[in-house]
Amino acid sequence: MLTLYYAPHTISLATHILLEEVGADYATVRIDFGKTEQRSPKYLEINPKGRMPALVADRGILTETPAMLVYVAQSFPKANLALIDDPFAFAQVQAFNAYLCSHLHVAHAHRMRGYRWVDADDAHSIAAMQRKVPESVGESFALIEREMLKGPWVMGERYTICDPYLFTLAQWLELDGVDPARIPKVVDHRRRMSERATVKKAIAEELA
Amino acid sequence: MLTLYYAPHTISLATHILLEEVGADYATVRIDFGKTEQRSPKYLEINPKGRMPALVADRGILTETPAMLVYVAQSFPKANLALIDDPFAFAQVQAFNAYLCSHLHVAHAHRMRGYRWVDADDAHSIAAMQRKVPESVGESFALIEREMLKGPWVMGERYTICDPYLFTLAQWLELDGVDPARIPKVVDHRRRMSERATVKKAIAEELA
Repeated sequence: MLTLYYAPHTISLATHILLEEVGADYATVRIDFGKTEQRSPKYLEINPKGRMPALVADRGILTETPAMLVYVAQSFPKANLALIDDPFAFAQVQAFNAYLCSHLHVAHAHRMRGYRWVDADDAHSIAAMQRKVPESVGESFALIEREMLKGPWVMGERYTICDPYLFTLAQWLELDGVDPARIPKVVDHRRRMSERATVKKAIAEELA
Repeated sequence: MLTLYYAPHTISLATHILLEEVGADYATVRIDFGKTEQRSPKYLEINPKGRMPALVADRGILTETPAMLVYVAQSFPKANLALIDDPFAFAQVQAFNAYLCSHLHVAHAHRMRGYRWVDADDAHSIAAMQRKVPESVGESFALIEREMLKGPWVMGERYTICDPYLFTLAQWLELDGVDPARIPKVVDHRRRMSERATVKKAIAEELA
């Protein structure tokens, strides 16, 4: 049994979708960012980083989306969604997801979470970071469009753990000020993802 | 045969050390940041991101340190340095490395690469980011010290791919303005890593 701690409109959706894709038996616990529950002593016991998401498994608690996605895929090997038995293909899957967590998601975070990298009361720098987001997130999506997204899925014909992860980040691109017309493959991928029953179910639960 | 594209004083050292640890047959190509070779058309053909490192394998080119570390470990299964056959242990390894690439390394990058997230000519914001680095990198190392580094190695008794990765980032903590006295376990880990023949050899080659 797996329990996903999630918050709506966060990266937890990627793992939530994957749990649906593999048909996992799982529960969810919603964390309310409006009440800063991610910083509550109770949640910090689950995840001392105070971030979303966390996945409680039989043997302990896991964090970090790239790790959680592989863990879920490896726990449901029949679906083979991480291509883990092919070291080179798996490395490509991992490289894509590492790019999302260390570049794209980080660029995005400078819009709402600039206080991580400058003093929170430095309005000039906070605003400067926000102004750069359309360019930095846009360039990151442009690189994905040009060099990484093989189509129809990220890794080509095979649907993998890269797909729900990209989809989740792509939900925010308009809010980040990125022009969707510049990245038609990413937007088409997002549309096809949004039509999957698994995606619809995970989103419906999070927004209920 | 593997070929590692590296630059001294960058995160490529982590993979370089691992190649030594597993006894891989590998070659290296040095990229000169002083000449901005990482942005040269020739290197951009290898890695369109223009970043370090890249690993050329028989089947193609890999990037992103967390992916490369697992690929090397999976290619030399005897050493079992990623604990990949134990899904939960592997997820812990991966979660640690994902934290390094998406939090610690990102915090560090705000000291020298602030132009990624604000306009390069915005001296106020560039300086504001630099001033925050001792705190943001320091908090990240403090969390590693308190919650993650089991000792003697990151994952406990087993040396894994987490160790060269943490070691490489820990080399920069004084330059980042972090007080080593606050994180004795991290500093002790760094010292023990620096005494390994594999680490000495990789560093000597990079600095030759």
